[in-house]
Amino acid sequence: MNDVKMIEVKENILADNEQVAKNLRSRLAKSGTLLVNLMGSPGAGKTSFILKTIEKLHKKIKIGVIEADIDSMVDAELVAGSGVRAVQLRTGGFCHVDASMVSAGLDVISCGDLDLVLLENVGNLVCPAEFDTGAHVKVGILSVPEGDDKPLKYPLIFSTIDVLIVSKIDFLGMTNFKMEALKQRALNLNPTMKIFEVSVVTGEGVEKWVDWLQTVLSPKVT
Amino acid sequence: MNDVKMIEVKENILADNEQVAKNLRSRLAKSGTLLVNLMGSPGAGKTSFILKTIEKLHKKIKIGVIEADIDSMVDAELVAGSGVRAVQLRTGGFCHVDASMVSAGLDVISCGDLDLVLLENVGNLVCPAEFDTGAHVKVGILSVPEGDDKPLKYPLIFSTIDVLIVSKIDFLGMTNFKMEALKQRALNLNPTMKIFEVSVVTGEGVEKWVDWLQTVLSPKVT
Repeated sequence: MNDVKMIEVKENILADNEQVAKNLRSRLAKSGTLLVNLMGSPGAGKTSFILKTIEKLHKKIKIGVIEADIDSMVDAELVAGSGVRAVQLRTGGFCHVDASMVSAGLDVISCGDLDLVLLENVGNLVCPAEFDTGAHVKVGILSVPEGDDKPLKYPLIFSTIDVLIVSKIDFLGMTNFKMEALKQRALNLNPTMKIFEVSVVTGEGVEKWVDWLQTVLSPKVT
Repeated sequence: MNDVKMIEVKENILADNEQVAKNLRSRLAKSGTLLVNLMGSPGAGKTSFILKTIEKLHKKIKIGVIEADIDSMVDAELVAGSGVRAVQLRTGGFCHVDASMVSAGLDVISCGDLDLVLLENVGNLVCPAEFDTGAHVKVGILSVPEGDDKPLKYPLIFSTIDVLIVSKIDFLGMTNFKMEALKQRALNLNPTMKIFEVSVVTGEGVEKWVDWLQTVLSPKVT
């Protein structure tokens, strides 16, 4: 297993977050590194989705992972077990990460030679949507057991994301979740959103996501 | 269906939230009304749990419900359909409710003759734990599909709650969720926590929760 560090991060209230985020994107563009910000509820399956993405891509490209949590480093340890560089940001009380925190994380994993960095934000459908982390692509993960009404209740995050991963589709049919209702509600807020239906247990839908991710690897960072 | 109102609420940054919460508890004590604050992730099953609790108790006691969401009033409409007084707090961007917001909600449902008010907080495992809403009992809901590692990642909320409802136990065996691991992690943070395992689909465990709730109805408010 690679060495995993945990760093304590604090909100940089003095810095202009949008400027820090912009600088971060420039820095990543120079090294050709795509930064993907993954947001979703606690238990939506963010870490499992990252592990599956690594499994499919780590032989083709160099990947790093930034895990953020209020506390614990279980996710970063799990991810590092898959052989990629990982760092855990411990936010203390903070319900989100900002661009300064991400920048600190990128320093720890020495991102200069990486093609892709996956950022797992704090599990939360509210606060993470409000902060630019410097990511090129914003991905929301919503799991089937959470229900199809979430775009109605958390409109900002669904308006903000470029990609929606509907995870745990192996649970379809076991709840009253209606995929078409979810898609309609999400697309009403954000008509250009890409939607992928995925199960990391059965593997269904994973290839489509990975294929799409590969198409944006280069163009986004040049 | 009862009439449902939606009120827009804002954080009262001028008021001392702890003092407002204290006053709220005094006000509720006078009318013998127990206020229960339900917190959990988006999709943990908070609304379904409230509906099930109403179904079991509404012939015995008078119940009101305060629903809080960033947007939409789907939950309050659903709850009002069960015949109880309900109000929707629309928090706009806020990831939690505070005592002033709850006080405004109680005014709308005229809580003076109610025995029990159930407050459904914004779906979030971080921010709601930080604010005293004036509630007598704090209940956390964690659903089986979310995973058994959540106390490690969101320690504050698990340290704060009086009761943990492990919901959607009909999903046990379909994921790698380990009930004993969850309980151990939760009790490590909070050894006096009451834990109920519940499925609103099969009805399992609901009676135990309702029986316990009835035991605290009077003592807590006198």
